[in-house]
Amino acid sequence: MSDRGIPPAVILVEPQLAENIGTAARAMLNCGLTDLRLVNPRDPFPSERASAASVGALEIMPPVKIFDSTEAAVADLNMVYATTARERKMVKPILTPRALGETAVEAGRAGRKVGILFGRERTGLEKDDIALADAVVTVPLNPEFTSLNLAQAVLLLGYEWYQAGDSTPPRVLETHGAEPATKEQLYGFFAHFEKALDDCGFLRNEEARPNMIRNLRNLWGRAELTEQEIRTLHGVVKELTTLREKKRQ
Amino acid sequence: MSDRGIPPAVILVEPQLAENIGTAARAMLNCGLTDLRLVNPRDPFPSERASAASVGALEIMPPVKIFDSTEAAVADLNMVYATTARERKMVKPILTPRALGETAVEAGRAGRKVGILFGRERTGLEKDDIALADAVVTVPLNPEFTSLNLAQAVLLLGYEWYQAGDSTPPRVLETHGAEPATKEQLYGFFAHFEKALDDCGFLRNEEARPNMIRNLRNLWGRAELTEQEIRTLHGVVKELTTLREKKRQ
Repeated sequence: MSDRGIPPAVILVEPQLAENIGTAARAMLNCGLTDLRLVNPRDPFPSERASAASVGALEIMPPVKIFDSTEAAVADLNMVYATTARERKMVKPILTPRALGETAVEAGRAGRKVGILFGRERTGLEKDDIALADAVVTVPLNPEFTSLNLAQAVLLLGYEWYQAGDSTPPRVLETHGAEPATKEQLYGFFAHFEKALDDCGFLRNEEARPNMIRNLRNLWGRAELTEQEIRTLHGVVKELTTLREKKRQ
Repeated sequence: MSDRGIPPAVILVEPQLAENIGTAARAMLNCGLTDLRLVNPRDPFPSERASAASVGALEIMPPVKIFDSTEAAVADLNMVYATTARERKMVKPILTPRALGETAVEAGRAGRKVGILFGRERTGLEKDDIALADAVVTVPLNPEFTSLNLAQAVLLLGYEWYQAGDSTPPRVLETHGAEPATKEQLYGFFAHFEKALDDCGFLRNEEARPNMIRNLRNLWGRAELTEQEIRTLHGVVKELTTLREKKRQ
């Protein structure tokens, strides 16, 4: 986690069901978040139900801290964000989860402590809790059907924090150790393949021939072939032409 | 949805529990996805359990289509992506959910049909199913604890598709119709406030005064005050100085 700095704390304000504490913990740990704080949970905590729902996450994470007010739960933090689904009539900056993720990674790397508040399952955060926060975070989702459970909201915020510090390339060709073919190997296959097409008459239309060859070369090029696959394709062409030779006899 | 083009289809391959079909549908509709397809679901479908778990989503969405093979389920699609958590020894491009979201919005806008395959709850997609796909999608998450349920995986992929077509600004000050103060109003408050500080002696250190004033102006500036808040602050300063005057008498 070091390249993301201090991970944000997740503060569940008055969670109602023990299961939801567990599923929130599970969602957190997926994203490398381990600082879980509860403000006045309705069900007793810790509990079997919470632990079972966490699928092992609560055992791995440091002990959950319990507080009797939101103020106390965030007292040591430098920046606090309130998640809300519904409109609250407050003059407040609204961030996307992505913007919060980037802000939180920046803050964490600078040694600042960030917390994200989540309200009760049914009713969300109270206005007085929101007023304690620096900004509101709202997830842009289908306005005609916004129905996230607590763990899903925690997951989306944690996911964006994790992505903000992640260096996975958007797209990579996984070859599991196989070497990508060199251009010499690729062009060697082109020559074999095109010779076979010439021999069988597929390229007999002289006018269409150059374009057909270019199209086929582009097709093979898009496939990002490995050395092993080039060898396989040489074998395929060889066997196909051998079959043709045999039939001709 | 029109600015995102055709939404991707979600294909659940051999889902085991009816509940998971419902929660996946709920996750989808949150993201504006409505094309759900099932390949050989183990529990019968449709079912009460699936509907209840969807929290209304299955009633809103068009009918779910059921197929007896992955090939048949994706036959009309142009691009197919396979979600996997574990490493499969296949030479295949691997995309992040974000890259897939962007690719899918681009494709959907061009009128192309995209599908995302999700495997069984416990074991994921079979290698033969992955071989039917254009690329693999893997969610970058905590490698020491990756534990997403089916609906959460669907949610994260759908979320990224939704975000890729979303224009919500990363940060916006929501004023609910209140007008942001003009600079004239703000500077008028500076004058009132600083006069009060001069009168009470807070700024008596001539050397520190200019810097102190700049710091306080920066503080007020960061608050992005509205017209109404400027009026409130004038009232606050007025009352505070009145109290002081009264005390002095």
